[in-house]
Amino acid sequence: MTQVAVVMGSTSDWPAMQQTTLLLEKLGITYEKHVISAHRMPEQLQTFGQAAQKNGLQVIIAGAGGAAHLPGMIAANTLVPVIGVPMQSHALNGMDSLLSIVQMPAGIPVATVAIGDAGAKNASILAAQIIALHHEEVREKLVAFRKEQTQKSIDSEAELV
Amino acid sequence: MTQVAVVMGSTSDWPAMQQTTLLLEKLGITYEKHVISAHRMPEQLQTFGQAAQKNGLQVIIAGAGGAAHLPGMIAANTLVPVIGVPMQSHALNGMDSLLSIVQMPAGIPVATVAIGDAGAKNASILAAQIIALHHEEVREKLVAFRKEQTQKSIDSEAELV
Amino acid sequence: MTQVAVVMGSTSDWPAMQQTTLLLEKLGITYEKHVISAHRMPEQLQTFGQAAQKNGLQVIIAGAGGAAHLPGMIAANTLVPVIGVPMQSHALNGMDSLLSIVQMPAGIPVATVAIGDAGAKNASILAAQIIALHHEEVREKLVAFRKEQTQKSIDSEAELV
Amino acid sequence: MTQVAVVMGSTSDWPAMQQTTLLLEKLGITYEKHVISAHRMPEQLQTFGQAAQKNGLQVIIAGAGGAAHLPGMIAANTLVPVIGVPMQSHALNGMDSLLSIVQMPAGIPVATVAIGDAGAKNASILAAQIIALHHEEVREKLVAFRKEQTQKSIDSEAELV
Amino acid sequence: MTQVAVVMGSTSDWPAMQQTTLLLEKLGITYEKHVISAHRMPEQLQTFGQAAQKNGLQVIIAGAGGAAHLPGMIAANTLVPVIGVPMQSHALNGMDSLLSIVQMPAGIPVATVAIGDAGAKNASILAAQIIALHHEEVREKLVAFRKEQTQKSIDSEAELV
Amino acid sequence: MTQVAVVMGSTSDWPAMQQTTLLLEKLGITYEKHVISAHRMPEQLQTFGQAAQKNGLQVIIAGAGGAAHLPGMIAANTLVPVIGVPMQSHALNGMDSLLSIVQMPAGIPVATVAIGDAGAKNASILAAQIIALHHEEVREKLVAFRKEQTQKSIDSEAELV
Amino acid sequence: MTQVAVVMGSTSDWPAMQQTTLLLEKLGITYEKHVISAHRMPEQLQTFGQAAQKNGLQVIIAGAGGAAHLPGMIAANTLVPVIGVPMQSHALNGMDSLLSIVQMPAGIPVATVAIGDAGAKNASILAAQIIALHHEEVREKLVAFRKEQTQKSIDSEAELV
Amino acid sequence: MTQVAVVMGSTSDWPAMQQTTLLLEKLGITYEKHVISAHRMPEQLQTFGQAAQKNGLQVIIAGAGGAAHLPGMIAANTLVPVIGVPMQSHALNGMDSLLSIVQMPAGIPVATVAIGDAGAKNASILAAQIIALHHEEVREKLVAFRKEQTQKSIDSEAELV
Repeated sequence: MTQVAVVMGSTSDWPAMQQTTLLLEKLGITYEKHVISAHRMPEQLQTFGQAAQKNGLQVIIAGAGGAAHLPGMIAANTLVPVIGVPMQSHALNGMDSLLSIVQMPAGIPVATVAIGDAGAKNASILAAQIIALHHEEVREKLVAFRKEQTQKSIDSEAELV
Repeated sequence: MTQVAVVMGSTSDWPAMQQTTLLLEKLGITYEKHVISAHRMPEQLQTFGQAAQKNGLQVIIAGAGGAAHLPGMIAANTLVPVIGVPMQSHALNGMDSLLSIVQMPAGIPVATVAIGDAGAKNASILAAQIIALHHEEVREKLVAFRKEQTQKSIDSEAELV
Repeated sequence: MTQVAVVMGSTSDWPAMQQTTLLLEKLGITYEKHVISAHRMPEQLQTFGQAAQKNGLQVIIAGAGGAAHLPGMIAANTLVPVIGVPMQSHALNGMDSLLSIVQMPAGIPVATVAIGDAGAKNASILAAQIIALHHEEVREKLVAFRKEQTQKSIDSEAELV
Repeated sequence: MTQVAVVMGSTSDWPAMQQTTLLLEKLGITYEKHVISAHRMPEQLQTFGQAAQKNGLQVIIAGAGGAAHLPGMIAANTLVPVIGVPMQSHALNGMDSLLSIVQMPAGIPVATVAIGDAGAKNASILAAQIIALHHEEVREKLVAFRKEQTQKSIDSEAELV
Repeated sequence: MTQVAVVMGSTSDWPAMQQTTLLLEKLGITYEKHVISAHRMPEQLQTFGQAAQKNGLQVIIAGAGGAAHLPGMIAANTLVPVIGVPMQSHALNGMDSLLSIVQMPAGIPVATVAIGDAGAKNASILAAQIIALHHEEVREKLVAFRKEQTQKSIDSEAELV
Repeated sequence: MTQVAVVMGSTSDWPAMQQTTLLLEKLGITYEKHVISAHRMPEQLQTFGQAAQKNGLQVIIAGAGGAAHLPGMIAANTLVPVIGVPMQSHALNGMDSLLSIVQMPAGIPVATVAIGDAGAKNASILAAQIIALHHEEVREKLVAFRKEQTQKSIDSEAELV
Repeated sequence: MTQVAVVMGSTSDWPAMQQTTLLLEKLGITYEKHVISAHRMPEQLQTFGQAAQKNGLQVIIAGAGGAAHLPGMIAANTLVPVIGVPMQSHALNGMDSLLSIVQMPAGIPVATVAIGDAGAKNASILAAQIIALHHEEVREKLVAFRKEQTQKSIDSEAELV
Repeated sequence: MTQVAVVMGSTSDWPAMQQTTLLLEKLGITYEKHVISAHRMPEQLQTFGQAAQKNGLQVIIAGAGGAAHLPGMIAANTLVPVIGVPMQSHALNGMDSLLSIVQMPAGIPVATVAIGDAGAKNASILAAQIIALHHEEVREKLVAFRKEQTQKSIDSEAELV
């Protein structure tokens, strides 16, 4: 069983969401990836959401832009934690995506991360932190990842010339 | 068969959406009204949307606030025209509702009107204009309604004292 | 008689609005297209609006940017449903266009769609949904169009590599 | 002949626009006042705009809120300078009014002032400054008004206790 | 060991964050609550963050307003998942809180929920969903909670009078 | 004596403000042009403002970006009408320029036009409309200019191919 | 000689700016307070700014709202550090004040603090931090103030009931 | 001992922050420069902040973008004045950076300057103004710098061709 599903509304979200999957791989997390448009594929969305738990998914990462209904509608159909990644939209730079994802009404949460690439990466890390609560190997990879990125920041000071 | 369905995500939207139903009555349009939370009742939403056409609905008016997924998700499930009314939300005054409703991706439109009361009223009038294309009686009521509101505006000048 | 009029404030709106007309053609809807600047051609605007119904128009699609008065002022002059498409403006990315179009006062609605290309496409689909209420052929084309776009989304998953 | 016309879209704008007329009186400027809804009274708007010059108006002050089309549409119908006052709207606090008024396309300017009361007052002063270019008496009143408000500001320091 | 820590920057956040704790109780989750100001108590923040994992915390919920550094700085000091709740701030209605919490750079995620009360409630539910991945009892309480809120929404339709 | 002064805060505003001067020339209005930085040249600003009337200026057009204090500070030093043109700033696209110019307190108005090029052009036309109140030749040029731009809009419809 | 001048554009800013003066007193800093409207008193502003250094001022704190030119124009007239406090304005909640104060062009900085009361208090503390660089007594009072506020935050946890 | 520390969250901030260091050099101020990521290096941040005063720093300039916690968290750890420079972020153009830096709660101020390059330069000048209060040589360099930039603005008028 895969641990995480990475879902996006359109292949145009793939350049951002690929950063999610690359980091999941680095953190040793198994994943599957899907295109599920909330608006063009509402039945598939429901089927996917309702089967998520019995399929063993521990986290669902959903990227969407504009009137970004995908993360919230998946969340409405499952108890598996859903992380929403707001895509940087064309006209409004992702402010529409962010508000459509984060401003969920009481009852159905979406764990929202930053707009665009930073959020796509952080979705993986957040998923890993959740999984690591009961998965020592992932936890160790996270510890190593953090150390590595801290060291990179420290070392980068030498580039200030 | 009723002509219009007025749907809202929560009873807290009723004070605004009641202005929709009052105006529908004035314009001689039959309607039904429903609470359908996109997030708490995703299956009912889908059932409602998929049955809309065969139930004879000609327009669906959907009011929602915050991450307002209701209008877009109904639209994803039917070919009946959907009018979205952004509720004036608590923290962001309806800017979140507006963007979540209007910024639909290519393929599934929602006819969005103004935030709050003005939009709730205009949703009725827009529905009536659509119905009036093939309904002489509604058209006449609209003509009378327009004349009346124009006259009211003209007469109101006397109040500038 | 043409079914839809596609109107824009300037030829600079044409690259976006052409996506409207291409989709109208695909959906089998007859249309005419016009440049009517609300500010440079106020008399022509009024003439156009007042004649819309007797010219048999069933929907008017109006694209405009900045202080986008065109859709609202046409709507003020006719009972034919008006769909407003906010152009992505230079400085404010279409936020000005959106608010100028959608925030209509009670009494005169404009059916507003998304900023830019997505909205331009959706205006056609919304117009088709309105026409399809009494036009079986258009309805069938819409059904086919929806199926096609759903299938495209489903198939696109294979591109996630 | 009156020098200035003060126009508003609705009597709900009167509390703000009354501050315009009170200040016009103080500055010795004759004025007329009208309710002209751009959307409910488009023909009256056009008639008003087209007659403005031959009626001897030197400045038109137009207050409007939301999708505030009134100032821009009057400006489209006359060469008399138009000052636009954005009303503080309910949901968006006048940001919609401001953008709808100020973001006019090249060709038809509206002289926009601040949102709400400050703008309503400043519209009078700006009108007076325009009239004063060829009206010594108004100029003197403006000089006195400025001196008075400067002195008031200076004296107000004593209230800082 | 408690499962969740609820942290806030100031007692002024308590009216919102109390909705978090009430819901945690309803969902059968043990919790502790703290005031930790990121700016007034930076050392305590670091101590708290660094001890979180060894203290057995499975989720940390942090509410903060304005330049809301608390959630992000806790996240920087621990691998325990951090949920950030943007308080509805005085001047900017929580838009500042939201952006300060959600726009985290790649490397350190914060699971952000909606501004204000809705977010405070959803933080509990999200925490419960994470815990439920390995806690059958909490899962059952969540299932019951969802059913209950769905039923409440269904029943509320009767109030539309 | 020149009729209009075109002032800008920096030579970086010249590409926009040159559109002002080109249009002034077309409308037969004499002008002078200056760089006066409100922040780097506060004394020169005051000298310029205080001498404006006795130098015979009928309108001052001031372009500025960011914390755009130039138009408002000139207006504070003269009774000559000041038109403010918000430059499209680097980070915030001119929203900062717009608010800094238009949100003047009661007492000192600035006639604000659109952000960037459209505003730069409209500043000339507004200045011409003010001058035309007492200058038949300019009025005739304005009438011709309007006719020309209307005809251009009408003719442009042929380009919709 | 007083160490700090607290300046505001209007007595309506006094409720906020009084929080500045109360905190200056607590921190043992001498101050004077003034109403100087940038727009109504431009000459006094210039005189004040130009004399600031020779009057021995070490910091100037300036509060202003809307098109808040006061802090920037004082800064243009002196080398004494200027701290700007954006007032929470009526229509736009201080977003206009903030942008007008903080977005200064290269060359003339204003040290901007938060909108409203928090900023008014922080202006005092920032002034004290600057003075404390060469004033041991003020430094000690700041150390004590920080300790006190940290302790208050720690103690406040007991109120979470 | 260096007078100023220039700190940034990432080397990606260096192109902007290098404008800070170049100007510090021109103003004769000694400085050190560091990469300290608030989120990746929280311990180093605390160590740096707590040692700032005893290391003789008189001003700390901190540039950061997005959820820009760096300036505020340094300020929480020292009494040395902290100047915050909001980086122009990718999605939101620095609006997120600005609000995260400037909206500090009462108790811990950050002296915020403009977004991006203008702010980076002004941070140096503001630091110099603070140091100049007790450093005649820096004061003289500032006086010369101001004169030079004023003269440059005056001379630039010749480029308006």
